[in-house]
Order: sequence, then C-alpha cells, then structure tokens
Amino acid sequence: MKISVEGRPQEMRALWYEGGKVIMIDQRLLPNMLRLVRFTKCGEVAASIKDMTVRGAPAIGVAAAYGMLLATKDGSNLDDAAKMLKATRPTAHDLFFAVDSMVESIRAGKDPEEAARSYADAIVDKCRKIGEYGEPLIKDGANVMTHCNAGALATVDYGTALAPMRLAWKKGKKMFVYVSETRPRLQGMKLTAFELLNEGIPHAIIPDGASGHFMRKGVDVIIVGADRIASNGDFANKIGTYEKAVLAKELGIPFYTAAPISTFDFSIEDGNQIPIEDRSEDEVTMIDGHFMAPEGCRALNPSFDVTPNKYVTGIITEIGVIKPNEVGKVRRMLK
Amino acid sequence: MKISVEGRPQEMRALWYEGGKVIMIDQRLLPNMLRLVRFTKCGEVAASIKDMTVRGAPAIGVAAAYGMLLATKDGSNLDDAAKMLKATRPTAHDLFFAVDSMVESIRAGKDPEEAARSYADAIVDKCRKIGEYGEPLIKDGANVMTHCNAGALATVDYGTALAPMRLAWKKGKKMFVYVSETRPRLQGMKLTAFELLNEGIPHAIIPDGASGHFMRKGVDVIIVGADRIASNGDFANKIGTYEKAVLAKELGIPFYTAAPISTFDFSIEDGNQIPIEDRSEDEVTMIDGHFMAPEGCRALNPSFDVTPNKYVTGIITEIGVIKPNEVGKVRRMLK
Repeated sequence: MKISVEGRPQEMRALWYEGGKVIMIDQRLLPNMLRLVRFTKCGEVAASIKDMTVRGAPAIGVAAAYGMLLATKDGSNLDDAAKMLKATRPTAHDLFFAVDSMVESIRAGKDPEEAARSYADAIVDKCRKIGEYGEPLIKDGANVMTHCNAGALATVDYGTALAPMRLAWKKGKKMFVYVSETRPRLQGMKLTAFELLNEGIPHAIIPDGASGHFMRKGVDVIIVGADRIASNGDFANKIGTYEKAVLAKELGIPFYTAAPISTFDFSIEDGNQIPIEDRSEDEVTMIDGHFMAPEGCRALNPSFDVTPNKYVTGIITEIGVIKPNEVGKVRRMLK
Repeated sequence: MKISVEGRPQEMRALWYEGGKVIMIDQRLLPNMLRLVRFTKCGEVAASIKDMTVRGAPAIGVAAAYGMLLATKDGSNLDDAAKMLKATRPTAHDLFFAVDSMVESIRAGKDPEEAARSYADAIVDKCRKIGEYGEPLIKDGANVMTHCNAGALATVDYGTALAPMRLAWKKGKKMFVYVSETRPRLQGMKLTAFELLNEGIPHAIIPDGASGHFMRKGVDVIIVGADRIASNGDFANKIGTYEKAVLAKELGIPFYTAAPISTFDFSIEDGNQIPIEDRSEDEVTMIDGHFMAPEGCRALNPSFDVTPNKYVTGIITEIGVIKPNEVGKVRRMLK
C-alpha cells in the first residue's frame, strides 16, 4: 500500500519479517502516528494480536505465522506457542488456519522462515486476485460503501474489500466511497479513510447509523471483509455488517464480502457456530481515554455480528466470485 | 424527571421559566456536569437551540415558546423574533408550531407568560398521556430498544419514547433497555442512559452498529421519538432511526415512534419534503476536542433520516396509538 511519510508516498506492508524480527505498523496509533514495532519473541506477537496492534483477519493470520516462526527461534515449545497464539482472539478463522499451516510445515521439515514468508506472500497474492475478480463489480462512477477496515492494513497488502476499489481506481474508474466510521474502535474512520486518502480515492466518513440514509440516497455496491465464513455462506464480520446487509437486500443493492479461502471454516455448518468475541465495555464508554457515559452505566461490546447467507450477493475470493451456497463446492474442490 | 444531585434524587424539568428568566439544563455538559444556564433575551434562547444547549423536538418547541415570551420583554420586534427562532434548526416541527402558537396567542391579546407556561405544561401533560397509551406496549420482562434521546431532557419532562418505559417501570414491570449510543453526538449514551440510570431502569449502552445484532438476539419492542411526522406517516428522527425500522420489519419486531401532535406537519404530504439538517463535519471527525480522522479526510453528517410509513407499527400520541395511515384522520379531527 502507499503511505505518505513526510509528504512522500512509500510502498509499505502492514507487517513483514526482516533481520530476525517481525516488524509491524502499530495500527492503534494510526492515522496520527506511523510507528513501527519490532518483535523477536512469539509471546510478543501474541500480545500484539490480542491488543490489536495488528488486526484484520488475514493480517492476524500472517502475524500468527510469523509468531510461529519466532517460536522456532526463541526456544518456545511448538505446541505451547500454537496454543498461545490461538487463544489471542476467538473469531477470525485465518488465525487458526495460519497456525495449523505453520505447525504442519514445520513438522514436515520445511524451513520455518520460508514457510512464514510464503504464507504472507500467498495472502498478498490472494488479495491481488480478489482485487481482479472484484474490480468488475465496481462500475465507472459508482458509489461504493464499505465498513470497518478490510484494506491493506487488515491483510498485509491490497486488502480484501478494498482490493477491488484500488484496482478500479488504478484502471481510471471514477468512484466515491462511503466509509462508515465503525464504532467503537473507529477502524473505518482511522484506517480505511487513511488508506483511501493515501491512494487518492474520493471518499467520506459517515457515522455508522447514517449508512441506511446514504444507501437510500444511492449506493451501487457494498463490499466488506469477513472474519469467518461458515460452510453455508453465513459469515462473521465487524459489528454493524449485518445491518448493512439487511438494508442492502431491502434496497436492492448488491452486497459482497471479500475474503481469501483461509477465512472459510469448513468445520462449521452455519453462522450460529461462530464464536463472537465480546470486548471491553471501555471501548464503548471511553473515547480517547475520556469516560463519555454516565458513571455507573454498563455497555455491551460484541466485536462481530453474523450475516446470514440470504443477504449475501456473492463472496469475492482468490478463485473467483462465488455464491454463498457454493462454499461446499469450494471445499470439495480443495480436497 | 429524577436527577440525582450530590447523591439525592431531585425532581427537575429540562427547562422552565422563573423570575423573568428561562432556566435550562445545559445538555451539552451532561452526564458529567449538571449546569443550569439562565437567559433573559430571546436571542440567547435562539442561540441555545442552535448550539444544542437544549435539544429534542418538544423541548425545542418549549424553548422557542419561552424565547417568544422573552421577546415580548426585551424589546424585540415580534416578527423578527419569530423569524430568528425559526431559523435556528430546520427539521423539528415543534419549533415552528410553538412559535406560531405564541404569535397567535400574543396577537390575540393573551398574557405571553401565561401562554408560554401553558404551552410547556401542555407538552408535559401530552408526554404523560403518551406514557399511558404506550405503556401497554411494553410487556413485563420485555427487552426494549430506543435510539438517541427522546426522554424528559428532550421534552421538558417524562419524554416521548421514554414515557412508556418510565410508566411501565413505575408499575413494577421488569424490563431491559438497549440504548444505542447515537453517534455523532452520543445523545443515547450521554442523555438516555443518564435518564434511565436516574430512574433505576436496567439498561446497557450499545454501539449503533450493534442494534441489529441485539435485535436478532431478542428485542420485543422498539420505541423512538420523532422530529417531524408527515401527513402520510413518514417521519424524520435522529440519524440511525431508519436502519432500526428496516431491521425491525425484517425481524418482525414492533416499531413505534412516540410524539405529540405538535410534531405532525400536516402541510407536507410525505417524508421527502422534510428538510434534513446537515451539521458540521467536526461532530464526526472530532471527539471531545480531539481530531480522530486522518488529516484531510471529509465527513458527512446528516442529523436526521426519514423512515417511510411502511416500517412504522404505530405512532404513540397524546390521543392514543395511531397507525401511520391515520394521520390524515387526526388532521380532520383537529379541524
């Protein structure tokens, strides 16, 4: 992705491995500060996933793969490292997929550094392909809507939901992107708007509750990411996604989720089986360190919701745009 | 309403007239500070509506009525005062209704103080009746959802959407209220939660985008306020209302708006004719004085949205619960 550093655009990934260290952008400090953090221990990477220094399902997967690589160097027990990484966050499927892939590769005698690096490169390549398959869904002059951040920051590079927008823009298509701010952590406002600004793609931040209002006024296509996709095409994504999907159906707006196959959880039948992470009340009641709610009030903070397959027009993957009821076919194809 | 002052609950209105002064709670400082402001000039009251010291359609109406009263004392020209007050905010119909009522009363030779006081008392009485008509809609043990603040703070006392909840609770019904925080100004988190806390009614604050998630898990009834209701039953209310209405229909949850007849605008046919106030981008991009968005990013901040009548189960008014298609009947009845 392009990130402007002191006025000059630079190409950068959300995280990478270099000189024995995992280096990542501290996404909690964006957009106001671009700080890189460096880790040499698996436990540090696990903590960075838990505290959301790195976030976004595919990026979490890559961080976990690098975490397993560090585990082979810092003297950790492989099973313990895998367990620790898997315990960081419950919803994103890529996390479990990446850890299992690394364990398998290491046990098969592959070079851990090579395995982690190729896991990361493969995700970048998959996102590039998601961009290619998704790009035709964005017509010239389209009003597009997205939610949360499913961009390069969430996926190492290109993004899932943002990849088709990047490519359409590069191809010269005009477009305008509505970015819902995505409370409580504001990843739409802080991260997606940051990425679009750096790419020069016209956009505006809107309060989450204004999504329906603007959809009614005229949105041509909605593309969001996914944290886990069940066998029947139900999927979990950032809280607020389900609402947009229902509104899109009501208004006849095509609604897509974009994700690599590593986000598919073939072991579960439907979305009811996806564990939903409840995060701290403080994320809702405190903003920027200030308590905004009346003292003594409680808040509920589910981090994800589940969108039933009937609201999904299609799933943009690295092997093409599939219908929610074709997830089983993908599974059989992969076997 | 009850407000706890230094640990002791006191009965208080959102605004009142006393000793030649309009006194109001500065709602921008709640819940952390309870400060009363005092005005002796119509222009000060107009400014307090514009800067949202007082907000909520019925309370804005009462403030405007008091503003007209002050105009008769501070040497203002009556027409200029009416024009100034009407120019403060464009969407809430009560504002125009209250100013016109006062002009009519004053021109008819009525005592302005008496006219303003009875306008305020009538609103309080209407809210009490809204509570009585709405209370049976809340079953014992119900999960209720509301949006923004349509409580005593928005209406002088009792509230519109909150009046049925207050009465049901007083009658001993158990309930739980989901309060959507209502970005960008957080009136749900700051004001509705404050009122429910003071009444002792169990509740939790949720991000706006989590409304659909909790509706799917189990909400029995949704009650919101209204800023303007058109002749066909379409209504404008705080941004985010339309989304809840669509989701409620999809999930089979009864969806009510509660408002006094002063909120009905019989001069317009449908919701498309309701002017929607666009407020400052800063309300979205800045929180508590801190800029949260990437520098250079724009935001869109429509303050209200329009909910078409087909999503409205009923309108809770001081004359009973009516269907959206019965608004015309009310008009004929009033003539």
